Amino acid sequence: MPIKCIAILGTGLIGSSVGMALRQNGFSGTIVGWDRDPTQVATALSLSAIDVIAEEPLTAAIESELVLLSGPVFCILEYLEQLASILKPHQLVTDVGSVKSVLCQRAAGHYNQFDKAGFLPGHPMAGKEVGGAANADSELFRGAVWLFTECHDSSGMSSEARASAVEWRSWVQKFGSRVLELDPNRHDELCAWVSHLPQYVSTALSALLEEKFPHDEDLRGIGGRALREMTRLGASPYSMWRDIAHTNTEAVAAAILALEQRLTHLREHLKTPELRHEFELANRFRLGSSNKP
Amino acid sequence: MPIKCIAILGTGLIGSSVGMALRQNGFSGTIVGWDRDPTQVATALSLSAIDVIAEEPLTAAIESELVLLSGPVFCILEYLEQLASILKPHQLVTDVGSVKSVLCQRAAGHYNQFDKAGFLPGHPMAGKEVGGAANADSELFRGAVWLFTECHDSSGMSSEARASAVEWRSWVQKFGSRVLELDPNRHDELCAWVSHLPQYVSTALSALLEEKFPHDEDLRGIGGRALREMTRLGASPYSMWRDIAHTNTEAVAAAILALEQRLTHLREHLKTPELRHEFELANRFRLGSSNKP
Repeated sequence: MPIKCIAILGTGLIGSSVGMALRQNGFSGTIVGWDRDPTQVATALSLSAIDVIAEEPLTAAIESELVLLSGPVFCILEYLEQLASILKPHQLVTDVGSVKSVLCQRAAGHYNQFDKAGFLPGHPMAGKEVGGAANADSELFRGAVWLFTECHDSSGMSSEARASAVEWRSWVQKFGSRVLELDPNRHDELCAWVSHLPQYVSTALSALLEEKFPHDEDLRGIGGRALREMTRLGASPYSMWRDIAHTNTEAVAAAILALEQRLTHLREHLKTPELRHEFELANRFRLGSSNKP
Repeated sequence: MPIKCIAILGTGLIGSSVGMALRQNGFSGTIVGWDRDPTQVATALSLSAIDVIAEEPLTAAIESELVLLSGPVFCILEYLEQLASILKPHQLVTDVGSVKSVLCQRAAGHYNQFDKAGFLPGHPMAGKEVGGAANADSELFRGAVWLFTECHDSSGMSSEARASAVEWRSWVQKFGSRVLELDPNRHDELCAWVSHLPQYVSTALSALLEEKFPHDEDLRGIGGRALREMTRLGASPYSMWRDIAHTNTEAVAAAILALEQRLTHLREHLKTPELRHEFELANRFRLGSSNKP
């Protein structure tokens, strides 16, 4: 196996879960961790998600075959830029960011060239509404899909970086994830619908209920599973979702607008037979597909 | 205990779950069941949710101390009307319908008078997205809130019916539910927000995705927990939710409209600091209350 040392830059929920999953599945090399927040990296160390705390992130990256960037999208973008000029062609950078086109755009010309390191954008479709290393879980990725969105210029990647990319995909599969390759733009479009839209709807619904019923314990008390599920993501951190709102704006706005219009339509047809059509379509989405979501 | 025989009219998911919960918690009287759909009542019998299949629903009701009406709201309304003239003052009718004001309005003058049977509207905040006796579960009500919304004229209830109402509340508590008393109008207002709105949002989102991505297996494959939770209720049956749309129209429409406007606001502020305020409010709803929903 070519990967002997992995640097995880950003040891929050996902970064620490990756470290734990690597260890649980037999990775015998070194895992170096770094985070802007000393608490996160200390927790990661205490959970054995990492072997050692890096003194400085760029040095840790230089000494690793694989660098995993984990955190909000702007944070990943920043590391991607800083690392471009200091890494060598045999090294591979991968990430777990929720938006991919902007990363490929930023990497263009700075990675995957004969004298540059490789970059393989990745995105595990797993997470929790509460972040932080303290919530890390080596089983977080089991049953999830792990998307990879190779940049269009990735043919220039070195053979060493390419071997690391093959090995990294195999680790991801050992975590229990199903690997799926997507075009970066299609990734952002699909994720706007299946991940970003649900988040912003849950935020909007939770904010609305908090504002309208600020101290109503009856409302909070009687809500069953439906309310719990629909507002669970209301607990998600602004920091992560601000970056997604800024980097996938067009696709997210289009998805939200489409849902607004659909709700208007449903509201105007609460007492007409058109409501049946909406339920039939919805039933088909949940029950009618061979590959249930 | 005054209740020796209970008639369950409508032995689908909720009716059959009540029968099973009664038996599991030591009810030693007779449970007679009836359903328009012979399959439902046969399944209920095979699950021991009922002891015997009624030949005819009205006769079964006449011979019981307690009549439980279970099913879509219009179905409950129909029985409520039919039973008004044939039940005696010592008998009590209760139900599990999702809308309460319309039931109290329809019962006014026909129940809770000196020569009329009693009526105690009830609503367990529990369910599943898939209906039918086959999905019944004696533990369905554990940890849920069971709302009661006494009609304004319930002071006219006979002492026998009143004793049955006390006993019924105690059975509900034995099922593991927390009993909460609400005014019928307030019930319908709160349920529009915590139960009906989540349902119609889930239906709208599921229908939208089905229409926009009818055969996209990538979309269905990559969706994680967020998508599963937000669209779970997309599987809910039209028959039940048509009745709610017809009988709680104003409150449901107001809640949907408020969410539409909130989504518009969020969409217009994807790249402004106002987004932070939405996340703060949402975080407070999920994390800030002592009584978490």
